[in-house]
Amino acid sequence: MFRKSPSQVEHRVTRVKRGSRLEEEDVLAAEEPLEIRLIWDEGGQALRKSIAVTMRTPGSDFELAAGFLYGEGILSNREDVADVSYCMDEDEEQAFNIVTVTLRPGLEFDIARLERNFYTTSSCGICGKAALESLEVQGCQVLPDGFRVAADVVCGLPEALRSAQAVFRKTGGLHASGLFDREGTLLALQEDVGRHNALDKLIGGQFLAGKLPLEDRVVMLSGRASFELLQKALVARISVVAAVGAPSSLAAELAEAYNITLAGFVRADGFNVYAAPQRIDN
Amino acid sequence: MFRKSPSQVEHRVTRVKRGSRLEEEDVLAAEEPLEIRLIWDEGGQALRKSIAVTMRTPGSDFELAAGFLYGEGILSNREDVADVSYCMDEDEEQAFNIVTVTLRPGLEFDIARLERNFYTTSSCGICGKAALESLEVQGCQVLPDGFRVAADVVCGLPEALRSAQAVFRKTGGLHASGLFDREGTLLALQEDVGRHNALDKLIGGQFLAGKLPLEDRVVMLSGRASFELLQKALVARISVVAAVGAPSSLAAELAEAYNITLAGFVRADGFNVYAAPQRIDN
Repeated sequence: MFRKSPSQVEHRVTRVKRGSRLEEEDVLAAEEPLEIRLIWDEGGQALRKSIAVTMRTPGSDFELAAGFLYGEGILSNREDVADVSYCMDEDEEQAFNIVTVTLRPGLEFDIARLERNFYTTSSCGICGKAALESLEVQGCQVLPDGFRVAADVVCGLPEALRSAQAVFRKTGGLHASGLFDREGTLLALQEDVGRHNALDKLIGGQFLAGKLPLEDRVVMLSGRASFELLQKALVARISVVAAVGAPSSLAAELAEAYNITLAGFVRADGFNVYAAPQRIDN
Repeated sequence: MFRKSPSQVEHRVTRVKRGSRLEEEDVLAAEEPLEIRLIWDEGGQALRKSIAVTMRTPGSDFELAAGFLYGEGILSNREDVADVSYCMDEDEEQAFNIVTVTLRPGLEFDIARLERNFYTTSSCGICGKAALESLEVQGCQVLPDGFRVAADVVCGLPEALRSAQAVFRKTGGLHASGLFDREGTLLALQEDVGRHNALDKLIGGQFLAGKLPLEDRVVMLSGRASFELLQKALVARISVVAAVGAPSSLAAELAEAYNITLAGFVRADGFNVYAAPQRIDN
């Protein structure tokens, strides 16, 4: 029998305090791709289209699909929906990551609007495993072990990031990404209302300056660490990613698969490591 | 002469404490759409394509475009870029919201990959004003004034949301959206690694239950308030949006244009109101 994807996933974590480290089981918020498909009737013929792939936490998937289509103006009333279902003809890992919404016969909607709004994440595949495998297909290589960083340096990064965030202090409304060397010196800082943008700006700046790859660099994120942020870090060959917030399950899996050191909940007195703790000296 | 978009925008704010309110000028992080265009050579012919529209804070736009295309695998080396420029043949408001990247002649890249990864936001237009106007074109109406809520109730929402976030307490990795009535009773709660997903799930649940529109409801967001979140709230006719974090400039402009009460930095002892403060009783 098929099992739904869990909304939480157990993950081994290394809790680092100055001078000590402790291995424990921890719980991470699950992140998995969800594909939303639409079926509608046109002249007696059932047409179908994949509308969007979004990285989400499993749970309330029918609500997510309905809310997304409502927000996009495809659905207006409850009666517009003839059926919502998971895709039981796919294999087990994908079945609960595909939701198909069937529109009531005769519902008029603007297909051109859908074309315009079509979006996918850069991850392909509709389960976490497939998303990870697609990185291999793209030619992403496992990071080497050479670069190391001291736990004390990691503990100092959030304060270094905050004190450099001139804009943040005024508006309180910006995500930040900071690039550091192994001594904890800030090399570059970018801010944006979108956390993906802040990291794209940071990596893009290094790219334009001809400074890629970034194997001997640490990136500090002001928020949480998602799959897509780790994906961007992997492409730029960043060995250590540290975040003020928590990582998602799929971010931790990516980091583990590609030997990226992933630190979360970074504070002045310690942090958690979700992958590749061997790069942290303490 | 054209002026670049600022990264911060002044905005009138009403600071509400129990029993008092104060009007002041405040500063918000700017949010504007950025369109990324690509020009490349194919058999001596210059081809061009719009690759993505992302809602971003103006500043380091060339870095953002380069970083995005690098992350997508279109660019690999600095030499792959022949030119990066703003689009000076558009009118002033749009010129600095379009970045065109010209690839070096002969660069091979997978156009199919671009097709797959193409994404846009649901906002059309490539300046904030155009994004707001597109909502009017979609038939969005200004919200009526009827619904009101007490300042005390708003102050109690963050704690109500947090105490209901069972998952959050374990993983610390989830955005939450809560739906409340005017007495501050929690009616629904959704969590997700993505804040858009959390709100889509919340509105989608109400949609599937036949409970839309939501004019007499308050939505509480665990993070910041962006244009796209306000857009979703507007479509669902939510009168009051409260957030633990800051709103972006364009979120505040949308709220003002459509008479949505937008509260930010909500704490137990007060909050800021960025639009439609007349709905708050204190």
